Amino acid sequence: MINVAILGFGVVGGGVADLLTNNSDCVSRLGGDEINIKYLLDLRDFPDSPFADRVVHDFDIILSDPEVSCVIEVMGGSHPAYEYTVAALKAGKSVITSNKEVVAAFGDEFLSLAAEHGACYRFEAAVGGGIPVISPMISFIGQNRLREVRGILNGTTNYILTKMFSYGASFEESLKDAQDRGYAERNPDADVLGTDACRKITILTALATGKLLPTDSIHTEGITAIRKEDVIFAEKIGMKIKLLGRCILTDNGIQAVVAPFMIHNDSPLSTVSGVYNAVEVIGDPIGNVMFYGQGAGAGATASAVVGDLMQIMRSGRSYAEPCWTKTDDGLLDFACFEARNYVALDGVTLSEVNAALGEIQLICDEGELAFITGVLSESEISEAIEKLTTAGATIKSRIRLV
Amino acid sequence: MINVAILGFGVVGGGVADLLTNNSDCVSRLGGDEINIKYLLDLRDFPDSPFADRVVHDFDIILSDPEVSCVIEVMGGSHPAYEYTVAALKAGKSVITSNKEVVAAFGDEFLSLAAEHGACYRFEAAVGGGIPVISPMISFIGQNRLREVRGILNGTTNYILTKMFSYGASFEESLKDAQDRGYAERNPDADVLGTDACRKITILTALATGKLLPTDSIHTEGITAIRKEDVIFAEKIGMKIKLLGRCILTDNGIQAVVAPFMIHNDSPLSTVSGVYNAVEVIGDPIGNVMFYGQGAGAGATASAVVGDLMQIMRSGRSYAEPCWTKTDDGLLDFACFEARNYVALDGVTLSEVNAALGEIQLICDEGELAFITGVLSESEISEAIEKLTTAGATIKSRIRLV
Repeated sequence: MINVAILGFGVVGGGVADLLTNNSDCVSRLGGDEINIKYLLDLRDFPDSPFADRVVHDFDIILSDPEVSCVIEVMGGSHPAYEYTVAALKAGKSVITSNKEVVAAFGDEFLSLAAEHGACYRFEAAVGGGIPVISPMISFIGQNRLREVRGILNGTTNYILTKMFSYGASFEESLKDAQDRGYAERNPDADVLGTDACRKITILTALATGKLLPTDSIHTEGITAIRKEDVIFAEKIGMKIKLLGRCILTDNGIQAVVAPFMIHNDSPLSTVSGVYNAVEVIGDPIGNVMFYGQGAGAGATASAVVGDLMQIMRSGRSYAEPCWTKTDDGLLDFACFEARNYVALDGVTLSEVNAALGEIQLICDEGELAFITGVLSESEISEAIEKLTTAGATIKSRIRLV
Repeated sequence: MINVAILGFGVVGGGVADLLTNNSDCVSRLGGDEINIKYLLDLRDFPDSPFADRVVHDFDIILSDPEVSCVIEVMGGSHPAYEYTVAALKAGKSVITSNKEVVAAFGDEFLSLAAEHGACYRFEAAVGGGIPVISPMISFIGQNRLREVRGILNGTTNYILTKMFSYGASFEESLKDAQDRGYAERNPDADVLGTDACRKITILTALATGKLLPTDSIHTEGITAIRKEDVIFAEKIGMKIKLLGRCILTDNGIQAVVAPFMIHNDSPLSTVSGVYNAVEVIGDPIGNVMFYGQGAGAGATASAVVGDLMQIMRSGRSYAEPCWTKTDDGLLDFACFEARNYVALDGVTLSEVNAALGEIQLICDEGELAFITGVLSESEISEAIEKLTTAGATIKSRIRLV
């Protein structure tokens, strides 16, 4: 029997406790041993819970108990999650987390502490909720030369964009609907401004390259500026708009970005709708593979957390442990990022646009001028648009194409 | 350094040799050791290949070489693949295969031989080509109670169906196009009659249940009877037609089937087009997850084979080894299979259809009568249609809905 402690008895912690209880037969068969939830750390008491007697308020009880070999950190936030994780790993206890914030900020430190103390640090639930994507990337894809990892990494924004496409709703209407359904927070900034997706592409980039980029080194845009008109124009040319996290590996270095992208309807990522998440990995010789599923929710997240636990129980450190270095060395300047761009402008003629941007593919020339540019670097297109706006044009929208 | 032997230097064997050579840096980093291709078994010689000096024609050379710890069987077909696999496992050598035919027929025997002799038997490439799906199902999903595993398991038929939907082409025209492009064999029966998909759903069912069903116990239909008209009617109601392998787990037992199904355009499987494959796993509490990618081809298949090798090198048998029993115990009679059905009939009135099948959803009543039934068991619908045909109706088509 192995004894575990769960830090945080909230939605995810409750989901983990439920899974370990309800599916104890398959869990112990797969893990090769029975699992006992010895402690649940929380500030609150839960007198009506079947786990009431396991609830403790002092982390030191868990830390000093040599019977606890694995700590499941599902409290969220950076502190005290960081301190508890460090202490547990130094005590040789393995740590599993669903907390993308600490993985993106301190994953390098945790992985090297784990290596030093013969423990494991696992975080399948930190990206894509229940979708097995981190472990497959580590275990089953690393024999390939990766070219790109990209994904729909945030269910809230994908729900909002899906709503805008399905019902022609505005961003504000769709956000309100997402809030009413509990898919978006009262303060939705971490989702709609791309912060959450940025943490996740940071983690995926580290898996692909071994480099844990500072999150603020990644160019990050949210979806708040997307208009009804942009949706109509995208549909007209057979595309969707999706908030993507992308890590592109080139001979010159790494491009990492979070931003809304227009993506063709025949691309598998374009078909991911509602609160679902998906991660697409492109490499040689595997081609492109995609992992799809529920990116959040107690049950799905618990499945990923318990999956990590099973693997620690079976294989321990014989699993391919990642090793990360915190650095932005090799990260290319976003000014070099090249793409075709959808642009909508007002107060400008087609010939002025052609003069500034060369050949374009026109989408609309009634009211505003909407079009797709050729492949341009960020610095090239920014400069051209600045010229046009200086000459009197108004920029209504710009979205890059995948 | 570990020494491996590749049985069969065809498309897949060549892909494996290329991957191990071209990506030797990431391969040895992930596997934790260098890999040497000591032998390539083939009937032919390859004087111009860089591996010419490793080619042997006698399996006994490999079998009796104690330095070879892992045998990669990518020759295809049942014999001598079966005999070589048994001999290698009995000698304590691990075996990796891409050969779905032997896994579906003898996987139970190979897994127990592997357990007995402390070796590993792995077959990630046998389902879904390069897509990591078998290992994730074993390692990262088994903590869930599975409800269904279903997939687009054959790229040839998916290409043909995609062509029929995109261009309104007939089955015959689409098959010819697939043959011209090398996606279909001259004799396409194993693909278009569902035999290949049946082997793959047999393997997925064994992973989900521990039971390796005899392939001939699984109700299998191909796509040869699908008409242009069926495609038009499916489009009219917002559906695609896909050849699915399905394993449904109920309290009463297992339903396993390979057949064309109509599936809503908002279902992720409906968006899988061309030669791509995808497997969707539905369980509690994970919800539904889908794995998508290239279901065939030298590179993708080699990625899966080498992924298995990496895992054997790192974790050996500490990985969750499956254990299968060959049995059809618990497999439900297909007569009990329940679904809504799309039906197209000629020479019958709407009131006769209502009398025989109850309430229906009418798709078309000009020329033939096309409609969707309520949920009926196979025995119920077969009986009703027999009554109608006895009374003079002609059945033009019937396709179940997911």
